[in-house]
Amino acid sequence: MNLQDLLKGKRLVLASNSPRRKVLMEGLDVNFETWKPKHSKESFPDSMEVAKVPEYLARQKAVPFRNDLDGDTIVLTSDTIVVLNNTIIGKPVSEANAKQILKQLSGNKHTVITGVALSSLNSEVSFSVKTDVYFRTLTEDEINYYVDKYKPFDKAGAYGVQEWIGYVGVEKIDGSFYNVMGLPVQQVYQELVKFLTN
Amino acid sequence: MNLQDLLKGKRLVLASNSPRRKVLMEGLDVNFETWKPKHSKESFPDSMEVAKVPEYLARQKAVPFRNDLDGDTIVLTSDTIVVLNNTIIGKPVSEANAKQILKQLSGNKHTVITGVALSSLNSEVSFSVKTDVYFRTLTEDEINYYVDKYKPFDKAGAYGVQEWIGYVGVEKIDGSFYNVMGLPVQQVYQELVKFLTN
Repeated sequence: MNLQDLLKGKRLVLASNSPRRKVLMEGLDVNFETWKPKHSKESFPDSMEVAKVPEYLARQKAVPFRNDLDGDTIVLTSDTIVVLNNTIIGKPVSEANAKQILKQLSGNKHTVITGVALSSLNSEVSFSVKTDVYFRTLTEDEINYYVDKYKPFDKAGAYGVQEWIGYVGVEKIDGSFYNVMGLPVQQVYQELVKFLTN
Repeated sequence: MNLQDLLKGKRLVLASNSPRRKVLMEGLDVNFETWKPKHSKESFPDSMEVAKVPEYLARQKAVPFRNDLDGDTIVLTSDTIVVLNNTIIGKPVSEANAKQILKQLSGNKHTVITGVALSSLNSEVSFSVKTDVYFRTLTEDEINYYVDKYKPFDKAGAYGVQEWIGYVGVEKIDGSFYNVMGLPVQQVYQELVKFLTN
């Protein structure tokens, strides 16, 4: 059965402020609502493997919605991180920091990992998807142009793959492209089908 | 020097009817004109390796523009093919054929190859870029839904990676995502910089 049919009588909710995630969800051709995220714990155990952090944070983001759930509502929460040399690169805190981050990514491979949790009244599943991204060596002019014009301050890793820097700078990716944009839609689709079939 | 600066006093032309290629070129933040392609030879030598065909056809598409060129005009022509088991999959000729093509791609890896030629009065360069695309196994319902709703008849391989089937069906890619959409913009950018610097 198609996801459209499986969702009949259900309410699917994307809990995210990201306009990119909303556009990506729209590509699945299903009805959904968008809710503002609620405050959740953003820390994780020091001992946690980097690769497990986004899925953990996605589950944390679901916690404050517990009282809003009924049997027919499914809330999708998610978290995306950029990892370079086993270190998490967050959102830039300033223009200078954004340029510094892009200098680090320049000429290197990094990994984008998105964790996703699907939560309803009685069950929760979570998973994460990782994609390797290869930037060619960027010039200082290119980094300055991008940061000054596109102001990527709300973006993990200080870039949007769907923006100029992704067009001119990303040589190749290995994995899901939409994951790099912020939501691994293919896996979300499959997991929603499974979630609703069980 | 940035491409924007290198193009000052020059005229860049995208010779293509494809709205997707136009959108992709726009992402490079440079001024360009769009011209309708002219009729060109669409055949290639039987002995030609499949991987070399798109670059050959891109060069063929530049031939009828020779009389329109001056020293300051650069015409970009391109051709995209989908290759499965060393066989070229063209555009579907009917609804039934589109569904048949997607059944072949389902659960398999295929390769998208785009050839690009940059031509001016005195010089021409060409190159090609290939990306591997992995479809999960698609259900008959999914194939029917996609073809009936999205009518991918103008698309090599009968799908657009930026459409529903790309969202729900593509597990991963290896290479340039924008190449699968129709134009390897990163390589186009780099080759334009080289072309204008020489």
